[in-house]
Amino acid sequence: MENTLVERYRKLNNLHLEQLGKGVTDDHLIWLQVQTRQSRIRIVEAARTRIFLEDRIINKPDRLVREDGYIGQEFDLDIPAGISLSIEKTVSLYNSRDLAISESCLEACDALRRRKNFEQMLTLHEIAWKHLWQRWGMSMETNSRRIEQVHNLHVFHLLQSASPNTVGLDVGVPPRGLHGEAYRGLIMWDELFIMPLFNLRIPDISQGLLMYRYRRLPRACSAAEEQGYRGAMFPWQSGSNGEEQAQTLHLNPESGRWIPDNTQLQRHINIAIAYNIWQYFQVSGNVDFISFYGAELFLKIVRFWTSKAEFNRELDRYEIRGVMGPDEFHDKYPEADKPGIDNNAYTNVMVAWILARALEMLDMLPQNRRRFIMEDLSLSEEELSHWDEMSRKMKLVFHDNDIISQFEGYGDLKEFDWEHYKKKYGDIQRLDRILEAEGDSPNNYKLSKQADVLMLFYLFSSDELHMIFERLNYPFDAESIPRNIEYYSSRTSHGSTLSRIVHAWLLVRSRRKESWKLFRQALESDIEDIQGGTTHEGIHLGAMAGTVDMILRCYSGIETRDNALWFNPRLPKEIRSLNYCIEYRRNRLRVDISPEFLELQLQDDARQSLRAGFRGETFSLRPGERKKLKL
Amino acid sequence: MENTLVERYRKLNNLHLEQLGKGVTDDHLIWLQVQTRQSRIRIVEAARTRIFLEDRIINKPDRLVREDGYIGQEFDLDIPAGISLSIEKTVSLYNSRDLAISESCLEACDALRRRKNFEQMLTLHEIAWKHLWQRWGMSMETNSRRIEQVHNLHVFHLLQSASPNTVGLDVGVPPRGLHGEAYRGLIMWDELFIMPLFNLRIPDISQGLLMYRYRRLPRACSAAEEQGYRGAMFPWQSGSNGEEQAQTLHLNPESGRWIPDNTQLQRHINIAIAYNIWQYFQVSGNVDFISFYGAELFLKIVRFWTSKAEFNRELDRYEIRGVMGPDEFHDKYPEADKPGIDNNAYTNVMVAWILARALEMLDMLPQNRRRFIMEDLSLSEEELSHWDEMSRKMKLVFHDNDIISQFEGYGDLKEFDWEHYKKKYGDIQRLDRILEAEGDSPNNYKLSKQADVLMLFYLFSSDELHMIFERLNYPFDAESIPRNIEYYSSRTSHGSTLSRIVHAWLLVRSRRKESWKLFRQALESDIEDIQGGTTHEGIHLGAMAGTVDMILRCYSGIETRDNALWFNPRLPKEIRSLNYCIEYRRNRLRVDISPEFLELQLQDDARQSLRAGFRGETFSLRPGERKKLKL
Repeated sequence: MENTLVERYRKLNNLHLEQLGKGVTDDHLIWLQVQTRQSRIRIVEAARTRIFLEDRIINKPDRLVREDGYIGQEFDLDIPAGISLSIEKTVSLYNSRDLAISESCLEACDALRRRKNFEQMLTLHEIAWKHLWQRWGMSMETNSRRIEQVHNLHVFHLLQSASPNTVGLDVGVPPRGLHGEAYRGLIMWDELFIMPLFNLRIPDISQGLLMYRYRRLPRACSAAEEQGYRGAMFPWQSGSNGEEQAQTLHLNPESGRWIPDNTQLQRHINIAIAYNIWQYFQVSGNVDFISFYGAELFLKIVRFWTSKAEFNRELDRYEIRGVMGPDEFHDKYPEADKPGIDNNAYTNVMVAWILARALEMLDMLPQNRRRFIMEDLSLSEEELSHWDEMSRKMKLVFHDNDIISQFEGYGDLKEFDWEHYKKKYGDIQRLDRILEAEGDSPNNYKLSKQADVLMLFYLFSSDELHMIFERLNYPFDAESIPRNIEYYSSRTSHGSTLSRIVHAWLLVRSRRKESWKLFRQALESDIEDIQGGTTHEGIHLGAMAGTVDMILRCYSGIETRDNALWFNPRLPKEIRSLNYCIEYRRNRLRVDISPEFLELQLQDDARQSLRAGFRGETFSLRPGERKKLKL
Repeated sequence: MENTLVERYRKLNNLHLEQLGKGVTDDHLIWLQVQTRQSRIRIVEAARTRIFLEDRIINKPDRLVREDGYIGQEFDLDIPAGISLSIEKTVSLYNSRDLAISESCLEACDALRRRKNFEQMLTLHEIAWKHLWQRWGMSMETNSRRIEQVHNLHVFHLLQSASPNTVGLDVGVPPRGLHGEAYRGLIMWDELFIMPLFNLRIPDISQGLLMYRYRRLPRACSAAEEQGYRGAMFPWQSGSNGEEQAQTLHLNPESGRWIPDNTQLQRHINIAIAYNIWQYFQVSGNVDFISFYGAELFLKIVRFWTSKAEFNRELDRYEIRGVMGPDEFHDKYPEADKPGIDNNAYTNVMVAWILARALEMLDMLPQNRRRFIMEDLSLSEEELSHWDEMSRKMKLVFHDNDIISQFEGYGDLKEFDWEHYKKKYGDIQRLDRILEAEGDSPNNYKLSKQADVLMLFYLFSSDELHMIFERLNYPFDAESIPRNIEYYSSRTSHGSTLSRIVHAWLLVRSRRKESWKLFRQALESDIEDIQGGTTHEGIHLGAMAGTVDMILRCYSGIETRDNALWFNPRLPKEIRSLNYCIEYRRNRLRVDISPEFLELQLQDDARQSLRAGFRGETFSLRPGERKKLKL
C-alpha cells in the first residue's frame, strides 16, 4: 500500500507500512500483518472465503497464493449449468491499539470465526444505521432533491469519520476524514465547524473529541513553557502525540520556490478548542465532564492568553502581538523581518470572550470541584480578577470609521486590483501563490484567503456580539454588521472551502440570493470536486459539516447560550419546510419549521423542562409540551 | 524480570518479557525497551540522572554500562569534605497501548525532558493525593489507631489498582491488584466486593470497570452461543480479550494429584456484573450510561439466564442445572459423572432478582432509547412477559424446615466432623485438598469453603430479601434469617479471604462480638499475611475493599435501592463515631454517625434534592439542608 492520492506528495516517502508476516490457519483463514514504520502500530487483515454451491459450503481452497505483501486463495470449481453460486468473503481488521484484545493477529482470525454469515452481519449493520439515521434525520421540502441527497451524503461521511464507534478511541477529526491523505491526518481547527453540529445530534461524539485534546494537554503546556508562556498552547497541526507538525517551508508550485511557512503562528487554534468546550457545555449541560476535564482544559488555554497578551499602559488595553489570524494570506507586515501580525481582531475578541466565560464556568461548578481545580492549577482569586479586567480591556483597531481592522495596520495596506487579476488568471483562489510568483505578496494588500474578522459574525449572533463589544467598551451598532460583512466579503478570494460556508451563513438574512448561491457551491464542494482535484486527496469534512449545519442551525437560527436554546428561523425560499429532532441537555426536541411557523415539541418522557428562547424572551417547555410560534 | 513471587508457579514459564533494545540519547537519557511475549505490548523505561553538587548540575556520566537486559550509567565525582550532594533519578514508563503517543520509546524520553525537577513532580503528586483523600477520607474515633491506619492502607491499595488514572484505560480489577502475580492478572468476580464501595466514592471508576466488561460483551455472547445459549456468558476467569482462562486441572499439593477443575461452571460471575450495573445505576443515576451501554450489557446477561433455565411443568417452576455456586467445595454430586449442581439458591434467587430489575430498567429509560435497545436485541414484548413470569417462578429448595438449601440435594449430604478434622489438621481452610488426599471429597458433606446462600444476606437487606421471596411466592419470615446464618456459618471453613468479610457483615447486628473478631481478622489479612504466605503473591483486593466497605456501608447500614439512599447505622462498640462524605446522584453528602445520632448534610450547591431513607420512610434533603436523626 502506497499513499499516492496527493500528487505533490508523490515524490516524498509514501511507504508507511512494513510487512511483518502472513499466513493461513488450519481452518483456512488467511491473514497479513503489517506495522506502521514510525509509530509501530501493528495492523492485521484476515479473510475468510466461503463458496455456496448447491448444498455444499466450500471453504478449502485448491491453492494458496503467496507473493510479496500479498496472500490469496484460489478455488477450482465445476459448476453445473443453471446452478447459482455464491461467494462470501468476510474480512476483519484489527490493530495493536484496539481495546479488549489479546494479540491483534489472533483476534482478527477469531473475529471471523465468531461471525456466522453475511445476512447476520447485514442485519446488525442495518439496525445500526437505522438508529444513526433516526438521530440525524432531516426531512425537508425543497425545490431540488439534490439538496437532500447531498445533505445525506455529507452526514454519511461525517459519521464515517466520527461516530459512536470512535467515542472510546483516542482519535480526533482530521480535515479530510479518516481516509483522505491531504494534511496527512493531522488534526487542525476543523472541529470548530464540526462539533457544534455534533453537540445537537450525538453529544458523546463531541465529548470524545474534547477528550482527544484533553489527553494532549500536558504536551500543549510544555509547548507553551518552551516559548516562555504559561498554560496550554495547542499546535496548529497536531500530530498523534499532540506535537506541532506544521511545516516550516512550503513549495509554491507557481514559482517553484520554497517559501517560509508561518502558519503555526495561528495560535487561534487554542480559541477553537475553548469555544467548543463552552458550546458542548451549553448544549449537554454535562457538569461532570467540565468538572473533571473540560474546566482544566479551558482554564489552561485561558492562562496561555493571559501570558501571551501584553498590557499597554498608555492605552489601558491588552495587546496580542506576533500571531496569525485565520486568514493565511497575512503572515507578517510588508517589509517586516519577523513573521506575525499584531492585534488580530478575531483573536482579541475571542480572547476577551473566553476570559469572561472562564469566570462564568468556575461559578457554575460545584464548590468542591471549583476548589480542586483552583488548587490543581494554583489559581488564585487575584489571578481571576486579572482575567476579569483583561476580558474588558482587549484592544481592537478600527479603520474607515466602523470597520473592525483585521489586525493593527490593516487599514494602511494597499487596495488590491481584483478585476485585473481575475482577468489575468481566471481562478484566483490561491492569490498567495500567484503574487509570490510575481515577486509580490498578499501581505501588501487588503485581501483575505478566507473569513477572519467575519468569523466573529459566524460564531456569534448580533445580540451576543453586541454584549461582547459593550463589555469591551467599544462602540458598535447593529448597522456596522452589514458594513463589515460587505467590506470583507468583497476582499476575499475563498481559497478555503470553509470560507464559502462562513459567508453563506453571514449573508443568509441580508443577501439571501448570494447566500444560497454560496451554500449550493459549498454543497457541491466534494461531489463535484469544485477545487478541481482536491476531493481526490480527501473529502473536505469541515465544508461537509458546514453545509449540514447551515440547514440545521443557520436556517433555524439556533443559538445555545445563557442556558437556553434559542431559535430564530428564516428558511431560504428554496426550502419550504424543515422537520428534525435534536438533543439538548439530554432531552429530545422535535422541531418543525415552515415559512410561517416554528413548532417545538419536547419528548413526553423528558427528564426536565427545556428552556427555549425566541425573539429576546425565554420560556419553559414541559415534557410532552408542544408550542407553535408565529414567524 | 521474572515472575517468581508465587512459589507453585515457579516451575512454569515465568519469563514474559523479551528484550527489544536499549540505548542512550544525545542528552544522556538511557532507555530499555521490552515486549510481552504473547500479546506483544511494548514497554519502555527511560531514566534521567542528574547530580547536584554545589552550583553544578552534572548529567553526563563517565561510563555507560550495558549488559544483557540492563543499561546503566556510572559517574565519577570528587566531593569536597562538608559539601552535600544530591542525586536525582527520574524514570518514565510508557507502553505501546498508552494514549496520546506517537511511539512509546520516543515518548518515554520526551516525558523526561518535559519534567523539570523533583520538587515540581512532588507538588503535583501531593495535590493529586490530597484530592483523592478528600473524597475517600474516613474520620473515626476508635479504641485502636490500628483500625484507621489499616483502613487507610487499604484505601491506598484500592486507589493503586483503580483510580481516576485508570478510568480511560481498558483495565479491570484483578483479584490481587495490578502487581500481584497470583491468578495471573485474570479478572474474576472480585468487583462484586469492590464496585459498590467505589460507587459512593468515585463513581467514574465504577463506570470504567463496567466499560471493561462492555467491551468484552461480543466475546461473552460468542461463548454463550458456542454452548447453545443466547445472550452473554461471561467467563469465570477473564483473560485480556475476555476469553475464559480458568484452568481445567489443578494440582493438589497435599496429594500430588492433578484434579479436574470445574470452577468455570461458576456462571454466577454473570450475576455479579449485572448486580454491579444496577448498583452503579442506583447510586449514580447515570441514565446515559445505562441507555448506551449498561442496559445492553444487563439485558444480554438476563437473556443468557432465560436460555439456561429450564421450565419444570410439573412444579410450575424454572430450574437451573449444572452450575457451581460461589462455594467452590461443591462442584458435583457425590458419585456423579458430570460436574455441576442444580438449583443453587444464590444463583436462582439472583436470577429472579435481575429479571425483575431488567423490566424496571427498561421502564426507566427514555422511550426512544428503549426502542433502540429493543430493536438492537430484537427483544419483543412477549419475551419481556416471559421474563416477568420467570422472575416469579425460579425454583428454590429448602430443608430442615426453613433452611434454604445451598443447592438441590444439599440437605441429603452427610454432616462433616469438624472437631475431628480441626484436631487432626489444625488449619482446615483448604478442606478440599485435605479430603481429596484422603480419597474423600467435600462434595459428600454439608460444608462450604465460603459464603454461598449467605451471599444473599450480604447483598440484600432483610427488607429487600423479604420482597424477593414474596415475589417468588416462597414463605420466608424474619426469624429465618438468623437461623440460616447460624446454619451455614457453622459449616464454613473460610477458605477465601472474602468469606470473613461476608460473615462479619451478616453477624454485625446479631452476634456483634463475633462480627468484630472476623472484621479484625479480615483487616489484618494482608498486613499480617494471615494465610501464611499468600500476601507475597499479591494483596487481596476484595478483602481490602470489603473491610473499607464494612466501615462505610455496613456500620452505616447504607443501602441504595428504590431511588433512595437508605441509612440504618449501628456502630460496633469499638467505634465511637464515623464522619465522612459520599457521592450520591452526583451530589456530595456529609454523614456523621455516633451511637446516638445520624446526621446528614447535603452540600450547599447540590444540583437537586436528595432522597434519603430511614426506618422504612423516605424523605427529601434540600441543598444545604442538615438533618439530625435519633438512633
